[in-house]
Parts: sequence; C-alpha cells; structure tokens
Amino acid sequence: MKLRRSERMVVISNYLINNPYKLTSLNTFATKYEAAKSSISEDIAIIKKAFEESNIGEIETLTGASGGVIFTPSISREEAIAIVEDLCQKLSENNRILPGGYIYLSDLLSTPKILQNIGRIIANAFKGQKIDAVMTVATKGVPLANAVANILNVPFVIVRRDLKITEGSTVSVNYASASSDRIEKMFLSKRSLQPNSRVLIVDDFLKGGGTITGMISLLSEFDSHLVGVAVFAENAKEEREQMAYKSLLKVSEIDVKNNKVVVEVGNIFNDM
Amino acid sequence: MKLRRSERMVVISNYLINNPYKLTSLNTFATKYEAAKSSISEDIAIIKKAFEESNIGEIETLTGASGGVIFTPSISREEAIAIVEDLCQKLSENNRILPGGYIYLSDLLSTPKILQNIGRIIANAFKGQKIDAVMTVATKGVPLANAVANILNVPFVIVRRDLKITEGSTVSVNYASASSDRIEKMFLSKRSLQPNSRVLIVDDFLKGGGTITGMISLLSEFDSHLVGVAVFAENAKEEREQMAYKSLLKVSEIDVKNNKVVVEVGNIFNDM
Repeated sequence: MKLRRSERMVVISNYLINNPYKLTSLNTFATKYEAAKSSISEDIAIIKKAFEESNIGEIETLTGASGGVIFTPSISREEAIAIVEDLCQKLSENNRILPGGYIYLSDLLSTPKILQNIGRIIANAFKGQKIDAVMTVATKGVPLANAVANILNVPFVIVRRDLKITEGSTVSVNYASASSDRIEKMFLSKRSLQPNSRVLIVDDFLKGGGTITGMISLLSEFDSHLVGVAVFAENAKEEREQMAYKSLLKVSEIDVKNNKVVVEVGNIFNDM
Repeated sequence: MKLRRSERMVVISNYLINNPYKLTSLNTFATKYEAAKSSISEDIAIIKKAFEESNIGEIETLTGASGGVIFTPSISREEAIAIVEDLCQKLSENNRILPGGYIYLSDLLSTPKILQNIGRIIANAFKGQKIDAVMTVATKGVPLANAVANILNVPFVIVRRDLKITEGSTVSVNYASASSDRIEKMFLSKRSLQPNSRVLIVDDFLKGGGTITGMISLLSEFDSHLVGVAVFAENAKEEREQMAYKSLLKVSEIDVKNNKVVVEVGNIFNDM
C-alpha cells in the first residue's frame, strides 16, 4: 500500500503504539508502505521527536542486520501525579466504605481509561527491567495485571484461590491470610508460566501482604524470579512483613463511623 | 506546546487511538498545540484518510458549537479472518485437551496482542449500536470483557459466582448450569450497573448457554437492556436454548481419545 509521507507517519505511529516493546525492522515498514528505507528512517525520526516531546514514550533504533525500532511507552511525572491525585479524590468519596472497613474499588478497576493510566504508571516504574510476565491473583487483580501487561506487551498469569477443571494440572502453595487469620491455598496452572521467567507481581489492595508472599513462593515453585511488586493501593495502618513494593495510593485512614477515607499518593513517586 | 505539523499529526493520532468513541473538540487540539483550528482541521483530514485506507478506523467530524471529532476503531474482514484462522490453528494444537473434554484457553486469553485483536473483532461486530457497558462472568471472561471495553471505551461489569465482601450489596439470580446439571447462583454488585444501561455480554466459551441466560436475567433485575452476546468459542455439538450470539470460533469436535480438537471459524463473519 503506497501512502503519502504524512499518512505513512500516522499509520507507523499507530503500529508502534499498538506494539510496544516489540522490535520491528525498518524493512517491514518499507515493504508494507512501498517506500525507501531511508524515507522510513526519516519518518521514524519525526515520530520519535513527537513521542518524546509529548512524553508518549521513547523510540530506540537498533542498527545492524537484526536491527529495527522499539517503542517503549512512558509517562511524565506530572501526568502520573495528576492521574493519581484524581484517583485519591475518587477514593475519598464518602460512599465507598463497605461494612467491615473495606473500600469499594470495582468501578475504578473496570474503567478502561483509568486502567490504561494505571498500567502506564506501573509499567513506567519498572522500565528498563526485563519482565517476561505479570502475575496477579483472581479476581480483582486481573484487570490491573492485564493493563500492565498491555503496556509491557507480555502475557499475564492468574493465580487462583480455587481449583478449576479448565486449568489442567496446577501447583499449589499455602499462604497466611492476615485479614482472615487463616492458612489458605492458592493455585497456578502448571503450563501458565515458563521456568526462568522474570515476573512482576501486581495486586489491587495490599493489607497484610499474605497474598503477595504466597505469589512469591509460587514463583520459586516455577523456578522463576521476582522483578518487583506493585499495588493499586496500600493500607498504611496495616502491619506487615518487610517487603519491597510500589504503591499508587496509600490509604492512611478508614473511619467507618464517620464514613471517611483518607487517601494520599503512594510510594511509587519516591524514585520517579 | 508548539509542534511542527508532522509531529502534531503523530500526537493527535496517538490521542485518538487512545480515546476511541470520545468526542473531542478541535479547539482542544488547537489550544494544546498552539495551532489554528483550520490547521488542526487539515491534520484531522490527513489522519482520517490514513486511518481509513489502513482500516485502523473511522474518524467522524461533527460540526457546530458542541462539535468535534470521534474515532471509531474498525478492522477489515481480511485482517479479522486471518486473526481468527490463526486462533483456530492455535486451538487445534493437540496438547490442549484437558481431562473431561475441556480445552485449555488460558494462555490465549492472557496474551495482550491476542486479546486486543479479539476486542477489535467483537467491538467491530457491534459497531453503530449504542453500548454503555460490557458484562461478563468471573474469572475467565474478565480479560475478554476488558479487551472489548477498551475498544468501546466503556466500563465492564463482572458478575460473580461467589459472594465477596468487597462488592457491597449485591443482586443475585439463579441459573441452570447445563454442564453440571445444577441450579446455581450468580451475583452482581448493586452499584456496578446503572439502570437503563445498554449492555453487551461477552464470555469465553459457550456450552449450554446457562451462564449467559443467567446474565440476561440479571440485566432485567437492573432495568437494563441486552445489545448482544459475543463468545470467544462455542461448542457446536452442544444443544442449547434458542439464543442469538456471535462466536469467533466454533469447536466442532473434541476427541479426547485421540487428543484431537476440530475448530472452525465462528458465525461472527456471517454478516461482516
């Protein structure tokens, strides 16, 4: 398909945005759009400048026979903070407290634009680290893991608290659920994670940390390695085992009596 | 931020791709990129041509005071068929059959690129219909609903088979699970769906149709309306109640003895 330069730039931009972290040779574009490799190279230079100036992401060019371009999405600190401050406000809305001191999050974690932004912020916080898969626990973590995996362009892996016949053989570990003061089991399908994978763990709400400790012990059952842990929100009041994690939001107070939640920005911005 | 025309087209393309089905005024772009509205209008015309020629989607321009542009993603019949034929082949791989005649799908339904393509095909099949939310049942349906909702830029709603304290008040209905020959319950958080919503139901695998019938009866409990039903795969052998649905894949045979699955293209292409 032969296109004018301006149109070519639009479709190449679209391709890169939809194929993050993927190496694509300039020849692929040259063949597809019937243009000289040097013209494609100039297109990429303009797209790169536009992406960087607008903090959409970086485009890296690798030279040589197996070379090409790779798009890495990014987000500016200002945009990320504005997004998280908006989430703080949404979380502080006074109708979110459920009996037992839980916070209703389902509406936020099922809105594509919010999920996409959370995915961008978490992926950005682990930029430059090799990640093969994103792991989470069903059900609430799934859209979050999906969002981060979309940006990193890697599969996500769903750990379950129950056994399903549609998963085939599974590996299980025990974990201590702090909130319920019980030992529980979690399961992961044997074929869902390759050995030696480098894994980012993502979850919605960090309380005692038992679920995450459980997922970390699953990683060693799969001969895989932890890259890091990211959570949508953490409960600042909760005592938990020493554990490195990044949080978008920190819930410092849940006042059930007065129906009030105090939320602040999490630690993910400490080294951003 | 002042940009050159070519750079402006790249960032406007990026914006439109990431904000499908959203009306944005030309003034928004004009202000943001310090350009005349007429220049933005010319940019949009070029982007529109490129998007349409490459089957990325359509851009509609609404004139008047409350006017602007809306991007509607689309997919060509050829690209959609190529994607589904590739999925047919993946599903026919002979190590997918699990004891009991189930098919292992989790790897496909946790790969961002595959999910994105499925989302594009399903959203495209319901293009032109007003959809306020995508509904599915936990857990397997979640990434699918998420993918379709991403393209339609609407929230998704997760029906559960168990009661969770983090969902607040719920409404429940009974449904007949054909596969297990039992009456079961499904639950939906009361605040997760607005009354009078127009809802697209999405699920991973259609067997007897009990789960989908259950979700349809939940819709009437929420004074909401069914737009349509789309499934990733249907079991052609299964007898089920009369029900309109679109399927990407049709599994016509699961031969457990010989470890063989026969899969063909589903009915979603019948009127595409």
